[in-house]
Amino acid sequence: MGTAYAGFQRQMGKATVQGLLESAIKSVAQEQVTVSGSGRTDAGAHACRQVIAFSTASSLPPETIARAMNAYLPRDVVVTDLREVGTEFHPRFSAVSRLYRYLIYNRHERSPFWHARAAHIREYLDVDSMGRAALSLVGRHDVSSFVPASVRGDRVRTITRVSCRRVDHLISIDLEANGFMRQMARSMVGTLVDVGLGKTRADGVSAIVDHADRRVAGQTMPAHGLYLVDVRYPNTVAFGGRESKQFDNNEWFKECE
Amino acid sequence: MGTAYAGFQRQMGKATVQGLLESAIKSVAQEQVTVSGSGRTDAGAHACRQVIAFSTASSLPPETIARAMNAYLPRDVVVTDLREVGTEFHPRFSAVSRLYRYLIYNRHERSPFWHARAAHIREYLDVDSMGRAALSLVGRHDVSSFVPASVRGDRVRTITRVSCRRVDHLISIDLEANGFMRQMARSMVGTLVDVGLGKTRADGVSAIVDHADRRVAGQTMPAHGLYLVDVRYPNTVAFGGRESKQFDNNEWFKECE
Repeated sequence: MGTAYAGFQRQMGKATVQGLLESAIKSVAQEQVTVSGSGRTDAGAHACRQVIAFSTASSLPPETIARAMNAYLPRDVVVTDLREVGTEFHPRFSAVSRLYRYLIYNRHERSPFWHARAAHIREYLDVDSMGRAALSLVGRHDVSSFVPASVRGDRVRTITRVSCRRVDHLISIDLEANGFMRQMARSMVGTLVDVGLGKTRADGVSAIVDHADRRVAGQTMPAHGLYLVDVRYPNTVAFGGRESKQFDNNEWFKECE
Repeated sequence: MGTAYAGFQRQMGKATVQGLLESAIKSVAQEQVTVSGSGRTDAGAHACRQVIAFSTASSLPPETIARAMNAYLPRDVVVTDLREVGTEFHPRFSAVSRLYRYLIYNRHERSPFWHARAAHIREYLDVDSMGRAALSLVGRHDVSSFVPASVRGDRVRTITRVSCRRVDHLISIDLEANGFMRQMARSMVGTLVDVGLGKTRADGVSAIVDHADRRVAGQTMPAHGLYLVDVRYPNTVAFGGRESKQFDNNEWFKECE
């Protein structure tokens, strides 16, 4: 639950999830380690199943370290599983895909129960149009329309799935890709929101992708609606046989527990 | 969302929901009013659909007052509907039944997403046994086994439904009655938890009810798992035609929005 944190990555003088995990390990193993994660999350965004790794000289069994870490971690961060892996495993570089989910609470009145957990949009969103538009996001693209101009590096990503679903007032948008650049998931959602509001035509999203220009796509949605739901690794990676979850489960709370 | 509050009822020097609502009305209508609610909620407990009433000399239309109140209220409290009713209506005394729901997060690891929203029980609970035991709670009873000895007044209540349901790691227990005394819902749940853990037999709950002694029942569960889900009024009460929700919807989030 990312509400209280300035994201995953350690930053001087700020509470981050990486910093918390490193402190907990230090308390448990009396050792200063560096934790690597499967990717950054932004301030206020959430992670249901972040994958981290660290090297330790501790001879404590993994289950003991996990239990002890949970005694040091605050209530909004938990270690659910810890196991020994080969040194070739890296939570970020070994990953083959990530699933993010974006939640929108779509009702005129705001909800006391969703305020830090979903973006609030008062105007009714047409989820069917959003779903049609989402198909144009799928494929291997230059994602420049969805990434700040200042971000460096290769901008080609393969988006394998974008789907939209409404359950009463809650809309969840799943985005699965081999990698996500900064703000990419949130600005893709912003573009779909414009479709849902009728500001952009569903069949106009393809041209927005092709433009490869950040100025043509929709706004970057707020971080507090964003969840890193899962990270997938190839079966060949020594990852202790961790079961990768199926990505087709649409109940947010079943995956965020 | 009751996490930040010392319950519903106004208390000197404490943040309560009644106090917040009265302040919001004062800001909107420039008038000091007293808000009455359908019942107390405890510190940390939640209300999905609390019903309140107040008298005002303001000539503003109800929708305008509601919208303005929401501008003053914090993010964890919202007015979803406001309408004019006859003076014979009282949110507490006119009510014929209330539905409370208690949520238990039942998994060894705690959940960052449920920490202020469900009680955490590590040991596996047998929900089928709890459901069988729950049938013994239904009926017209002296509820002394579930109420602190210090509470005064008539202790006979009619419990119309108690049901238990598991969805993965989340257990929800619905309790519907014509009225709830202090701690009654939470100690009924504590008694069912003892059954779920195998400490009490399912067919032993009937004797616990009959004993009419607080010392024989289970513990009072923590308030943060408790939700006031709905309050029902007879159709004859002038309540502007408000639709009473059906009580058979088991998705907590559908009702808590």
